[in-house]
Amino acid sequence: MRAREHGIVIGTGTPGPHNAITDVAGVRVGHTTLISGEGARVTGQGPVRTGVTVILPHGDSTFDEPLYAGLHWLNGCGEITGMPVLEEFGVLTSPIALTNTASVGVVRDALVELEIAATGKPAWSQPVVGETWDGRLNDISGQHVRREHVHQAYREASGGPVAEGSVGGGTGMICHGFKGGIGTASRVVDGYTVGVLVQANHGKRERLTVNGVNVGERLPAKPVANEGAGSIIGIVATDAPLLPHQCRRLAQRAGLGVARTGGAGENFSGDGFLCFSTGNRNIPSAALDSATPRTYQVTALSDEYIDPLFYAVIEATEEAIVNALVAAETMTGADDLTITGLDGATLAKVLTT
Amino acid sequence: MRAREHGIVIGTGTPGPHNAITDVAGVRVGHTTLISGEGARVTGQGPVRTGVTVILPHGDSTFDEPLYAGLHWLNGCGEITGMPVLEEFGVLTSPIALTNTASVGVVRDALVELEIAATGKPAWSQPVVGETWDGRLNDISGQHVRREHVHQAYREASGGPVAEGSVGGGTGMICHGFKGGIGTASRVVDGYTVGVLVQANHGKRERLTVNGVNVGERLPAKPVANEGAGSIIGIVATDAPLLPHQCRRLAQRAGLGVARTGGAGENFSGDGFLCFSTGNRNIPSAALDSATPRTYQVTALSDEYIDPLFYAVIEATEEAIVNALVAAETMTGADDLTITGLDGATLAKVLTT
Amino acid sequence: MRAREHGIVIGTGTPGPHNAITDVAGVRVGHTTLISGEGARVTGQGPVRTGVTVILPHGDSTFDEPLYAGLHWLNGCGEITGMPVLEEFGVLTSPIALTNTASVGVVRDALVELEIAATGKPAWSQPVVGETWDGRLNDISGQHVRREHVHQAYREASGGPVAEGSVGGGTGMICHGFKGGIGTASRVVDGYTVGVLVQANHGKRERLTVNGVNVGERLPAKPVANEGAGSIIGIVATDAPLLPHQCRRLAQRAGLGVARTGGAGENFSGDGFLCFSTGNRNIPSAALDSATPRTYQVTALSDEYIDPLFYAVIEATEEAIVNALVAAETMTGADDLTITGLDGATLAKVLTT
Amino acid sequence: MRAREHGIVIGTGTPGPHNAITDVAGVRVGHTTLISGEGARVTGQGPVRTGVTVILPHGDSTFDEPLYAGLHWLNGCGEITGMPVLEEFGVLTSPIALTNTASVGVVRDALVELEIAATGKPAWSQPVVGETWDGRLNDISGQHVRREHVHQAYREASGGPVAEGSVGGGTGMICHGFKGGIGTASRVVDGYTVGVLVQANHGKRERLTVNGVNVGERLPAKPVANEGAGSIIGIVATDAPLLPHQCRRLAQRAGLGVARTGGAGENFSGDGFLCFSTGNRNIPSAALDSATPRTYQVTALSDEYIDPLFYAVIEATEEAIVNALVAAETMTGADDLTITGLDGATLAKVLTT
Repeated sequence: MRAREHGIVIGTGTPGPHNAITDVAGVRVGHTTLISGEGARVTGQGPVRTGVTVILPHGDSTFDEPLYAGLHWLNGCGEITGMPVLEEFGVLTSPIALTNTASVGVVRDALVELEIAATGKPAWSQPVVGETWDGRLNDISGQHVRREHVHQAYREASGGPVAEGSVGGGTGMICHGFKGGIGTASRVVDGYTVGVLVQANHGKRERLTVNGVNVGERLPAKPVANEGAGSIIGIVATDAPLLPHQCRRLAQRAGLGVARTGGAGENFSGDGFLCFSTGNRNIPSAALDSATPRTYQVTALSDEYIDPLFYAVIEATEEAIVNALVAAETMTGADDLTITGLDGATLAKVLTT
Repeated sequence: MRAREHGIVIGTGTPGPHNAITDVAGVRVGHTTLISGEGARVTGQGPVRTGVTVILPHGDSTFDEPLYAGLHWLNGCGEITGMPVLEEFGVLTSPIALTNTASVGVVRDALVELEIAATGKPAWSQPVVGETWDGRLNDISGQHVRREHVHQAYREASGGPVAEGSVGGGTGMICHGFKGGIGTASRVVDGYTVGVLVQANHGKRERLTVNGVNVGERLPAKPVANEGAGSIIGIVATDAPLLPHQCRRLAQRAGLGVARTGGAGENFSGDGFLCFSTGNRNIPSAALDSATPRTYQVTALSDEYIDPLFYAVIEATEEAIVNALVAAETMTGADDLTITGLDGATLAKVLTT
Repeated sequence: MRAREHGIVIGTGTPGPHNAITDVAGVRVGHTTLISGEGARVTGQGPVRTGVTVILPHGDSTFDEPLYAGLHWLNGCGEITGMPVLEEFGVLTSPIALTNTASVGVVRDALVELEIAATGKPAWSQPVVGETWDGRLNDISGQHVRREHVHQAYREASGGPVAEGSVGGGTGMICHGFKGGIGTASRVVDGYTVGVLVQANHGKRERLTVNGVNVGERLPAKPVANEGAGSIIGIVATDAPLLPHQCRRLAQRAGLGVARTGGAGENFSGDGFLCFSTGNRNIPSAALDSATPRTYQVTALSDEYIDPLFYAVIEATEEAIVNALVAAETMTGADDLTITGLDGATLAKVLTT
Repeated sequence: MRAREHGIVIGTGTPGPHNAITDVAGVRVGHTTLISGEGARVTGQGPVRTGVTVILPHGDSTFDEPLYAGLHWLNGCGEITGMPVLEEFGVLTSPIALTNTASVGVVRDALVELEIAATGKPAWSQPVVGETWDGRLNDISGQHVRREHVHQAYREASGGPVAEGSVGGGTGMICHGFKGGIGTASRVVDGYTVGVLVQANHGKRERLTVNGVNVGERLPAKPVANEGAGSIIGIVATDAPLLPHQCRRLAQRAGLGVARTGGAGENFSGDGFLCFSTGNRNIPSAALDSATPRTYQVTALSDEYIDPLFYAVIEATEEAIVNALVAAETMTGADDLTITGLDGATLAKVLTT
């Protein structure tokens, strides 16, 4: 059950049919979830509580058909590979993968493999991989994510409803002292759809705020050390026709959604946000041997109409975080650490009393 | 033989004893060079013309003892992982590795392994890996770099003279239409040492300029397609006590050295520069469990004295590029492509006539 | 009466003695308020509802003794002059002045005059002037601010309590559909003081949120067109010893305080934040003829201890905005436009029911 | 006489008909030059050696019809007002003015006056004013530029040949130890025109390099103290249809032209570059009351074709600097300081021997 199914409505906007990033036409999400072992942590053996999530930005090959994109860091204690290309050209040239901090490399190189398969040319791309740190519940030093896990998530990615909570890259995450992970939400404004997917691993319990109500300590949870030392990666998708600098503007607003739920871009938190627009699909591939036209036509949103998209990003980010919390059930991981799942019914009750 | 041994003197500054990045006390460099196979390219088999170079920024563990650092992109068609941490905190928290574009991930995760071994704690760091593209001479899609190659370069890293040309990450690189690769140089100014190491894979032949003289087409070379589609990564080290934003300032000047030798930050070139300072060694580790003091004392260079360091970075970058070119010998790689080595004696002659 | 005097307490932190930016030792604030005329707008004649606010960052001459500083734009539809120096050197080299959009220039040049008087040398500095747009209540095109108004605010700047609401640069401002202007607040954490001063001219009425409660439409106000087309400039002062990049980190958090009170960095809003630290006072002047030492010693806060400062900035920004709203009384300006002052007692009542 | 008339040809590209920024259709340039008094400096009286240059980016009102634009700082010891709007929206919304450091404000506010006259609406814009420091030859503290000087340069701006050397904003400037000022040049590539105009006040004499030849100390000049403490502002115009981030990319290349003539972005130098594209003219005005369409169509250059524009910017910047030097004649200013004009015939001779 998701936040809305518990009667928890965030903001005033209208979600899309799945209230998910997949409401942006063509966007697909796949998860590979790795859960095995229990008890004491033995590096390389487990317990394993991790995974990888892959987001395909449109229905075709991103390696061949880039999209305009932009990013923003609220706090840069994290990683999103592929940043220079995103910033220099303003384009997203690969699927986006999310995983744990110690497995960014293997996931990145697996995307290179997928690029080679997709393009039939020598590897060239700078894939985009974000991460958050699951080193409490997961044997992170064991680097358990393997290339085939990325291939699987890529292969199985689909539109429609998105699994949330302790799945994919979000499997072992902790958020505001509760079990965190993957969450998503969407808004429809002015005929455009804005979808947000987060991998939520950030925040202190005493700061958790839902719809303006500080609820963190009014909800039962086993205490956990070092809260707020996590991170949140947010992916914003929209079919509004945005130029690269406009994508960057939307990306910064995802951080405002984090702020409204109690985050602050804490020092040890890697709070990075990437926004891509599917509103222009004819952007030339960066590949060297293409028969690229000298110029091409694009559609741009007039900046004057961007505020509703800002509000949509903020609200959808808030709701995606709450969805991640509500979906994730209590988990016991490495060294028998147990992280309490936030109970949606209890949260709904606290919000109305 | 290096440029100076051929009588080619770049600029007016004084090099350090090894005219290398290792002239900055504590800096060590290690290369693993992978050369095998010949003939037609078969993905996964070869021919292999690649490798990895590791730079250890000081004599101890960078994972435990960070340094102030900053970076600049002249053109962002490339990758340096770990950018968010570098930009948010202004610190370098790992060794630096350079490799080929398709192997960034495996090298990054190998540095994570080294972090675990060095710190004895769960993996946490965001290692720094830069890359350039060796896909003409090397079976880049084969992703031939393996973790043990990184471990080897790390283990064997040493001070003193640095092997140049077709070694380490520079093995399969092409620069201004000639065989490129690793080059280094240094300058001593005002009692400080500035060292630069480049992995040079950039530039068009007709623009190659040494000491102001356009020499590219006055030197014999087999033509090669798509020159200028490479990249250059430059690492600037100094013992001058620089704050993070001052490191960033030096990093930008490395791009001016590229410009003076004929580079332009071409569209498909990933020209990224990272500068670190060993002048402050007591910067607290970012690790969560450290008994970190609330404040610490650092020494800062007065900005008014920074110009000589700027000039040193420019000159040393120019000379490092020329050293890379002069050191790299003619190489035949995948599909029997041959890239001509620039002959130092011929270059010296052209410069004086 | 301020928010706290109405029983409205923002957050959990402890304010300094004046709950103002002047709680940071040495910080002084001066306002020149220009109110004259009424009725129809005649460009050049009035009505005049504007002014200038000057912030002196420490007890001596900022022109001679710079401070580390950093800035962040949540949305850049605005102006803060002097940005390149702030970003390149990480230092604040002038007092800070706030005024209306059309008078930035005269205020800037007046600060140059003050520099000449203070230093006795040829003009050199790049003064820092921020602005928001008072073109509804004020004959902004009349450019009524004159140099002597800046001199007066500079001369009369003092520590202690700070006048709020429709004073100085905030005189003609509108915030979330109510009368806005200058507001300030402070927090004491870990022995450090963080003070924030805002010139608040931003936000839509329906989004105004205090302590998580959406109150904008539950408070009486005459409707006003084009809300959200304003801006907010926030100045963050602290005596914590921060390096330039750490100041920039605090500056970004001011935007989170804006978000928590209902702002979104709207498209036409210039939401810029500048943070300076008085924690290091021996930073060499940039003046050319100084007998500057080659290096100097500074104290830096370990990043690990920065979160409480982040929270303090967020809270103090929220409270400064509410203080601006509560202090500003209903004002009638150009073309008889009336903007309703938000009544603190009514707000307090709404928040508790 | 200009560099080419002396036989000094920079690079290999083809200039436009006027070899000036005005070769980009619609671009107009106007100068107001202020020269009066001699002898000892008396603040407020003179001697006066300063002025203002205005660049109109297209044939209509920039206040109503913005252009895509981007900027880059090689070294930020300077000022270009209006930066936040340029960076947030990627548009240029005003004419560009260049003047001396102490007069930026008055010039900015004069552009606001011109905006009011052009639009007939309340002042709203954030005008773009760059500066360099003429405090050696000019009584800079006297702030001699007045609003009517800006109006005059704006009114008299024209296409065709551009006056160079000691004119307009460049009147009192010093460059590489010689008399500097305004210079311009252009290149035609792939059917596009790239024009550059510089206000050159930067560089050390011993580093001056023309076509790769270090000439500074081979040319006669009276020594001058503190060379390299100036600045260079460069304006890049093109009719190639560039998006904002592509303009920013061209702007960075202007710095490479500075580097190739011996600049280094010295510490006290404000080396800022702004590029605008006239290739799209239907960008919605940011004015609040416009009947703006929700979306609009733009043409974008495929990045793959951008290299020739990069080379054109580099070359044209180099030539604009040399043109500034060659055009500026020996000048005596405040306190009888004489700055030697670089003689073009002598330079030509040095370059060929």
